[in-house]
Amino acid sequence: LSVNLVTGGAGFIGANLVPRLLERGHRVIVADNLSRGRRIFLEAFEAHPCFQFVEVDCAEAENLLQTILPLHRNKAVECVWHMAANSDIPAGVADPRVDLKDTFHSTFGVLETMRALGIPCLRFASSSAVYGDLKDTAISESSGPLNPISNYGAMKLASEALISAAVESFLKRADIFRFPNVVGTPATHGVLLDLIRKAMASPGGFDILGDGTQKKIYLHVQDLISAMLFIGAQDIGRHNIINIGPSDEGITVREIAQKIRSKVAPNAVLRFGMESRGWVGDVPRFRYDTTRLAALGWTPQLGSAAAIDKAIADIMLQKNASREAPP
Amino acid sequence: LSVNLVTGGAGFIGANLVPRLLERGHRVIVADNLSRGRRIFLEAFEAHPCFQFVEVDCAEAENLLQTILPLHRNKAVECVWHMAANSDIPAGVADPRVDLKDTFHSTFGVLETMRALGIPCLRFASSSAVYGDLKDTAISESSGPLNPISNYGAMKLASEALISAAVESFLKRADIFRFPNVVGTPATHGVLLDLIRKAMASPGGFDILGDGTQKKIYLHVQDLISAMLFIGAQDIGRHNIINIGPSDEGITVREIAQKIRSKVAPNAVLRFGMESRGWVGDVPRFRYDTTRLAALGWTPQLGSAAAIDKAIADIMLQKNASREAPP
Repeated sequence: LSVNLVTGGAGFIGANLVPRLLERGHRVIVADNLSRGRRIFLEAFEAHPCFQFVEVDCAEAENLLQTILPLHRNKAVECVWHMAANSDIPAGVADPRVDLKDTFHSTFGVLETMRALGIPCLRFASSSAVYGDLKDTAISESSGPLNPISNYGAMKLASEALISAAVESFLKRADIFRFPNVVGTPATHGVLLDLIRKAMASPGGFDILGDGTQKKIYLHVQDLISAMLFIGAQDIGRHNIINIGPSDEGITVREIAQKIRSKVAPNAVLRFGMESRGWVGDVPRFRYDTTRLAALGWTPQLGSAAAIDKAIADIMLQKNASREAPP
Repeated sequence: LSVNLVTGGAGFIGANLVPRLLERGHRVIVADNLSRGRRIFLEAFEAHPCFQFVEVDCAEAENLLQTILPLHRNKAVECVWHMAANSDIPAGVADPRVDLKDTFHSTFGVLETMRALGIPCLRFASSSAVYGDLKDTAISESSGPLNPISNYGAMKLASEALISAAVESFLKRADIFRFPNVVGTPATHGVLLDLIRKAMASPGGFDILGDGTQKKIYLHVQDLISAMLFIGAQDIGRHNIINIGPSDEGITVREIAQKIRSKVAPNAVLRFGMESRGWVGDVPRFRYDTTRLAALGWTPQLGSAAAIDKAIADIMLQKNASREAPP
């Protein structure tokens, strides 16, 4: 049982990680600036004796340190799950300051806090976006060159680089999880939520960004959390970079749109664009080599198509449960 | 003939690049914050009609933009040679804010300025430090994983990542030069200057960081400039990452110390340390695959040992020419 700091704990991934840590008996401190995360996602745990929430921007290193310091003096934090980041890729393409601050400076702030307090272990939400567009190669953790095509991917790679230097200098352990597209609830953004909203808003027909041939792999968030907990429990050296994902070849945007049509708007006409990329920074295809994770003994329960099916059902439930506008 | 902005133009590499651009008839604007660079290195060009110096910190994006804007309106800048960076690796290990600002934020500021002004072409001084310690593999541009072990290397990799996203978004061309250790004058830091200073200060004997077995490749700065000019003149696509270096296996710190002893302090006792690394962030050995550059048709005139010989002679001349304390 350990004391865990979850940055971005009120966001999509964090809000799924927190209960899984609590149910294993760990203490959890969530640090979130609530720029994209929502405190309501953590409502069920507010009264939990092992849960604590602090509102702080991890990109402000000195603030973060001063906020964590008294908590750390009370019970020493052993592990930081650094999930805080900008998650809106197009927003970062439009203004690189978004990813600079929320994705990169947050990592800098976390590392400075860990160095100052002597917190030994970091688990980091990195991304397949660090690879850029490697075309049809099956991407493994040692693939190169790493040419990210979005500021989001660039600042994830920059964060990995900073962590790498910190492992040499003071960290005792760092696990770098390279996520694929992750789906599930509480959904705040992403292709599924976009398409479901469009289908609900105009059941007669809706537009899809790109020509629909973009083929990607998807992981359900519950599988992702399982993988991170599994990797964290392995005795595998100080600096581990691991692709997390299904072993299938993925599913196209066209297939996703058809699934959503059948669930939400059976009579909708699907209107595709002309471009193979949905937006600047979109990688139209990729295959993911997950041999390293499989060799450790973990495989996801859901493949890409099943993850999408479950996530669509999750999001519909979330929408039905809410009287408000969708989050 | 083009208009070139050389950031860090008053530093070691920049001060060697400026005359080579001027002698080809190009216009040169040097932007330097003079934190490590010295205006005296550019003294010979101050009166040149095609030369201009502006003192500005590239890490301050808005300042940089406002400084370059009127010059760009006068004559459009076509190419930025981004050489500005912290060059003191141990300083960045001690305080990561040094590399964050001088190496990474300077790149961010340069890219923001290029985006705002529509400057098409970037040439960037990257480093073999992005590779970290890949042991005995011959490092090529697509080697991975990239696990830098210094904040210097981390912030060079972070800069490369940002440039990669900028190529996708707005840059017309980016050449990323991955430098090995570069030697020559005006020397401001580095193993040669350190050892020469020690040998001059205590001709009876001096200490060497590490056990002397660190084996590295070295490139003379004149060869480096030739390589950058050569690559820049090639018609080779929009995003080029190229190792620049000699094709030999390098030379050990012990051999370098012996060369310096023979030139400076023939009776000195060489006192080696116990560690195979000279300092945190030092990569003890590496081999460099320069096939890509050789295939373009360029090879250096001097191998590692000859580059060291010439650089020792350069530095001794620099010292003799100066009545002041060594720079």
